[in-house]
Amino acid sequence: MKKLLSLLAAALVSTLSFADEGMWQPHQLPSIAKQLKKAGLKLDPKDLTQLTGFPMGAIVSLGGCTASFVSDKGLVVTNHHCAYGSIQYNSTEDNNLLENGFLAKAYPEELQAAPGSRVYVTESISDVTKQMKSGLTAQMTGNQRYQQLDLQSKKLVAECESDKAYRCSVVNFHGGLEYYLFKQLTIRDVRLVHAPAKSVGKYGGDIDNWMWPRHTGDYAFYRAYVGKDGKPADYSEDNVPYEPKHHLKVNAKGVNEGDYIMVLGYPGSTNRYRTAAEVIHSFTQSYPLSKELMGSMIQNIKDNSAEGSDARIKYESMLAGLANYEKNRGSMMESYHKGTTEARKLKLSNDLREWINANPARKAQYGDAVEKLDALVKQSQITAKRDTLLSYMAYASQMMTTATRLHRLAIEKQKDDMQRESGYQERDMNRFTQGMKRINRRFDAKVEVAMLFNLVDRYAQLPSEQRIAEIDRFFGFDDGYNPKQLKSKLVTMYEKTDLDDESVRLAWMNKSVEAFENSSDPFIQYAVKTFEARQELEKQAKEESGQFNAVRPQYMEAIIAYNQSKNLPVYADANSTLRITYGNVKGYSPVDGMQALPFTTLEGITQKDTGVWPFNSPKKQLELIQQKKYGKYADNKLGSVPVNYLGTLDITGGNSGSPTLNNKAELVGLVFDGVYESIIGDWDYDPSLNRSIHVDSRYMLWVMEHIDGASNLIKEMDIVK
Amino acid sequence: MKKLLSLLAAALVSTLSFADEGMWQPHQLPSIAKQLKKAGLKLDPKDLTQLTGFPMGAIVSLGGCTASFVSDKGLVVTNHHCAYGSIQYNSTEDNNLLENGFLAKAYPEELQAAPGSRVYVTESISDVTKQMKSGLTAQMTGNQRYQQLDLQSKKLVAECESDKAYRCSVVNFHGGLEYYLFKQLTIRDVRLVHAPAKSVGKYGGDIDNWMWPRHTGDYAFYRAYVGKDGKPADYSEDNVPYEPKHHLKVNAKGVNEGDYIMVLGYPGSTNRYRTAAEVIHSFTQSYPLSKELMGSMIQNIKDNSAEGSDARIKYESMLAGLANYEKNRGSMMESYHKGTTEARKLKLSNDLREWINANPARKAQYGDAVEKLDALVKQSQITAKRDTLLSYMAYASQMMTTATRLHRLAIEKQKDDMQRESGYQERDMNRFTQGMKRINRRFDAKVEVAMLFNLVDRYAQLPSEQRIAEIDRFFGFDDGYNPKQLKSKLVTMYEKTDLDDESVRLAWMNKSVEAFENSSDPFIQYAVKTFEARQELEKQAKEESGQFNAVRPQYMEAIIAYNQSKNLPVYADANSTLRITYGNVKGYSPVDGMQALPFTTLEGITQKDTGVWPFNSPKKQLELIQQKKYGKYADNKLGSVPVNYLGTLDITGGNSGSPTLNNKAELVGLVFDGVYESIIGDWDYDPSLNRSIHVDSRYMLWVMEHIDGASNLIKEMDIVK
Repeated sequence: MKKLLSLLAAALVSTLSFADEGMWQPHQLPSIAKQLKKAGLKLDPKDLTQLTGFPMGAIVSLGGCTASFVSDKGLVVTNHHCAYGSIQYNSTEDNNLLENGFLAKAYPEELQAAPGSRVYVTESISDVTKQMKSGLTAQMTGNQRYQQLDLQSKKLVAECESDKAYRCSVVNFHGGLEYYLFKQLTIRDVRLVHAPAKSVGKYGGDIDNWMWPRHTGDYAFYRAYVGKDGKPADYSEDNVPYEPKHHLKVNAKGVNEGDYIMVLGYPGSTNRYRTAAEVIHSFTQSYPLSKELMGSMIQNIKDNSAEGSDARIKYESMLAGLANYEKNRGSMMESYHKGTTEARKLKLSNDLREWINANPARKAQYGDAVEKLDALVKQSQITAKRDTLLSYMAYASQMMTTATRLHRLAIEKQKDDMQRESGYQERDMNRFTQGMKRINRRFDAKVEVAMLFNLVDRYAQLPSEQRIAEIDRFFGFDDGYNPKQLKSKLVTMYEKTDLDDESVRLAWMNKSVEAFENSSDPFIQYAVKTFEARQELEKQAKEESGQFNAVRPQYMEAIIAYNQSKNLPVYADANSTLRITYGNVKGYSPVDGMQALPFTTLEGITQKDTGVWPFNSPKKQLELIQQKKYGKYADNKLGSVPVNYLGTLDITGGNSGSPTLNNKAELVGLVFDGVYESIIGDWDYDPSLNRSIHVDSRYMLWVMEHIDGASNLIKEMDIVK
Repeated sequence: MKKLLSLLAAALVSTLSFADEGMWQPHQLPSIAKQLKKAGLKLDPKDLTQLTGFPMGAIVSLGGCTASFVSDKGLVVTNHHCAYGSIQYNSTEDNNLLENGFLAKAYPEELQAAPGSRVYVTESISDVTKQMKSGLTAQMTGNQRYQQLDLQSKKLVAECESDKAYRCSVVNFHGGLEYYLFKQLTIRDVRLVHAPAKSVGKYGGDIDNWMWPRHTGDYAFYRAYVGKDGKPADYSEDNVPYEPKHHLKVNAKGVNEGDYIMVLGYPGSTNRYRTAAEVIHSFTQSYPLSKELMGSMIQNIKDNSAEGSDARIKYESMLAGLANYEKNRGSMMESYHKGTTEARKLKLSNDLREWINANPARKAQYGDAVEKLDALVKQSQITAKRDTLLSYMAYASQMMTTATRLHRLAIEKQKDDMQRESGYQERDMNRFTQGMKRINRRFDAKVEVAMLFNLVDRYAQLPSEQRIAEIDRFFGFDDGYNPKQLKSKLVTMYEKTDLDDESVRLAWMNKSVEAFENSSDPFIQYAVKTFEARQELEKQAKEESGQFNAVRPQYMEAIIAYNQSKNLPVYADANSTLRITYGNVKGYSPVDGMQALPFTTLEGITQKDTGVWPFNSPKKQLELIQQKKYGKYADNKLGSVPVNYLGTLDITGGNSGSPTLNNKAELVGLVFDGVYESIIGDWDYDPSLNRSIHVDSRYMLWVMEHIDGASNLIKEMDIVK
């Protein structure tokens, strides 16, 4: 263990050749101080390692998105698309906040955010690698390994969460080479303060999603509230604004081409260190399958819910998600087949093998890791298609998932809390309940039948050895598959189930296993009858996970040592933990003969305007642009107010809402997207094509001041003029 | 007359504020010498006025396209799309020159170009305004005026064509303010020498048409042959290469961003001086109608000819044309509705009126011209939709047009040659015959029925006062319109007609009017029965044309005087006569946040490659690019071989194939297209968006040398290294 750590440390102080690649953990920054200075940072990199200092103390997670404090009264800025659910939640037909935007002129006007909204303030990150690995032996089966890690993690979390104000998690880095415990203050009373109209905040909609040129005012404001004692509390009128120790100043002068920028946030997931076999499988098998499934589900929804109908409204969010991911997968496959990712991954694979074999010590240390990992990867791919179909079935059918989760809850409840499966512990019950409550807002039986039929129909056509006997039996495939019978079975299941009733679902949360076994609800019958078989699949998955956990860290050690020898950057794949990425404001050439300029301007909004969503800017905005009323936010070089800009930052999903900071850690924008050509960046960062998209602080302030009249917020924030 | 000319001359010597707008007649160039020098021209502008000197003597017309001599042995370079018909004509299933390209290694291998191919060398341009206007009086009706002009024109042409080596034409400028007689040596033996594969020469196909970034090798070579006496002759094995007095040198070093370039060629038609009412009618009535008709005809063709079928192959060319124009009209309407054309045209209309009214002399001179023109324009628009439908019917149905033309020929033949309608004189008979021969290569009854039904169906729904009684009667609409009956009538007409037989058509060329009247061929019956009515329409059209001819010149005098007073350029609308346009190599910003770079490079071809037409580059080309085998044609700054580049030149259809010359009149490329945003330039030149697209001489030479092995041609040309 000791040897490994020192090796890692050594890797981190080497000079890195890729300036802008890398999602750095705060503690790594001093080791890349030289590069940060060179790029233009004026702060001491050590300051960025202090989670409760400035500026890190101002950065918060919303769970899936990032945000930051911008006043000493708990004002939080994030992306419009991160606050979308809360804006939608507070919208009514008569008072459509999504369409019209929203501004609270004073505290009492602020609105409760959507149920379950949280502001997480990371207060400590501790290396718990030693604790996590204690008790692990080389002889353990994968399952034993998995259980041991799970138990250790639960213990660490339980201990950490003894103060109920905190939520804690143990996260693995480099596939299990290191583990860190994250302790986050969890603010439970979150309120909506301000959002521009959707025609500003989501301007360009799905069409412009991942595209440049871009003109989206993707910002919105929350406020964090706590009890009078300053501690997190459930919503109450008596609560008071949270007073963070640190908040960001907002720079009203913005940035110029070439300027240093950095993003502090919670990127979700990347796959930069996957083996060639994993990469090839993803791009030639998994992604094409996912894309096809998503496309077919989009069609199912559209075919079974008329535009503007209640059913369609319920599925708008899923539709947007599916369209988003379908475009994402499409872009990745396009980039993959056009680019050199596969060739370079194969080359790396060979180079790594040669490098290991060239030295007996290395061969002894890493030799079998590569082989073992390759074998495991191969093994895991055999049932990939079946596993994907089962997970899409769970995603598409809320009735099916509700039934299996409720049944599982009854079973888990028979155990001690610590022994229960994650997601079914007492600490999870609040979320569980909210999940059960939310279902009807996104459920329509006709649409679900169509999607579930689509997926089960595909499942039914898998080779029999891949199918699950109990599932086949339940759907009546034993005597051969008949699509018509399946369709009629599904229709009947949805007619007969009571799980579409919230009170029924909540009641099931407290029923016994026997009650489930005796139920005649068709989905609960599905849950009960397929339970053992699904448990077996889960066991296999855990066995596999444990096996990967035994091998991947060893492989990562080899990769780290190899990268170190080649002067390549070493940082862990994104895993929803706090990271820093830095770079510069810079355009790029998406295709030969075209240059994406680093800034867009107000005039581009007029150019795109069609009067029809998603290109229907507020009339007042169009008039102000027409009259060139730029106020104090115009950029001299551009001759207009900048709207969005491009950066070289290394970001991914989860970074949404992250503040973009200048070299003094002043807020100069919010990152909200990456360009189409950078989507493959989750696997393979290309410095010539990887560009982040930011909403310019000047555009945000211009709209707030000139369109929405949000002078109270401008006054509340510290504006650097 | 005298006054007008001096006024014109004065206008031409004024300093012009628009550097790159303008399609200049050769004689105008000395008057803009200052601007030409400033833009970078090294030649004396006077040299460009000498039609038989250098470089003008090297520029030729192909009729619809432009080309230039590039060797002293009559080698001609033009666009691939200008030689497309000849390449297709020589292609067989076994030897598909379109797909594979073609290279004659020596004279005997050169192939006859498509029937009717000509090389026109303009040898003189004479001002015949005086002759044309003699005999015109203010009291004449429109029809009298039309007939007088027609007769004068025929006389001038007949006189000029007394030497059979020449083809002559009288062309009006500024709507009849001036007339010029063009005398062109007509070379009738034209041979195909070299063309790259379609996957180079038409790379990007319809998708990239009018688009940037572009990577099209749009060049091909012809050779002009004459008799042993040096005079034009019909094709004969004994003919010898024509030896032009002048030819262009080909520059192998190309151009850089900002360099002076000019294009010499035969632009077809522009509408820069139309009134606001004409502009608004075109963009809000004519173009939407045309676009809809073209779209519906594309659908008719696709619905009635399977991909790859014989029928489809016959209509590929029409499909391409319709798609091209549909895109063209779409772009124009898009630009119009996004831009300020309408507002500016209305403003000009008001400004002009104010300017005229501000001065009694001007009011006396131009006052009623504007009113009269406005009234005429209004009058002409009443039947615009009907007239458009009738012209589309003629375009869509070759059977209908064949019948009406053959019948008309019989009627015209009863007159003296000089009295005959243009197109039916003896000088036209060669073309007429060739037209009759060509029909079957582009004819399928099922497709024609579908298109004709589509159009007649629309015609039938016009208000009755707009319809033509004889046409209604012929189709049986007298008792009300029944689509089913029409469909069945059309099907029967195509079943019964013999005009789909070439020999039948040719035989009809020599039959009497009586024979037509007695024929039972349904299309000939249509021609006969609707003749008088169509004659009446023609008479109305001529009356209108004559009336415009009386008023438009007066209006143009006012416009010219007004432009002169505002320091605006004065040049005539394009009319398929020889023009010069100059400017610079320069990119542009098509939309906010994006910049079109001035050059594309070989690497863009690899980026676009899909292996499937129209992005299926030859394998050898992809390999050479992969290996960076640029030969001597790489540009240092770009680090690769430039493929296409952008210029600010003012071009339009007809300029295709024109040589792009540098400041020493060396060939540095061929112009072959304009960008999407410049299509509206036919009405309204916008210096920030108007860009011409050129194939770079370096790319042409690189492909010729490294891919097609055309060393014989490279040797034959004078290459400036």
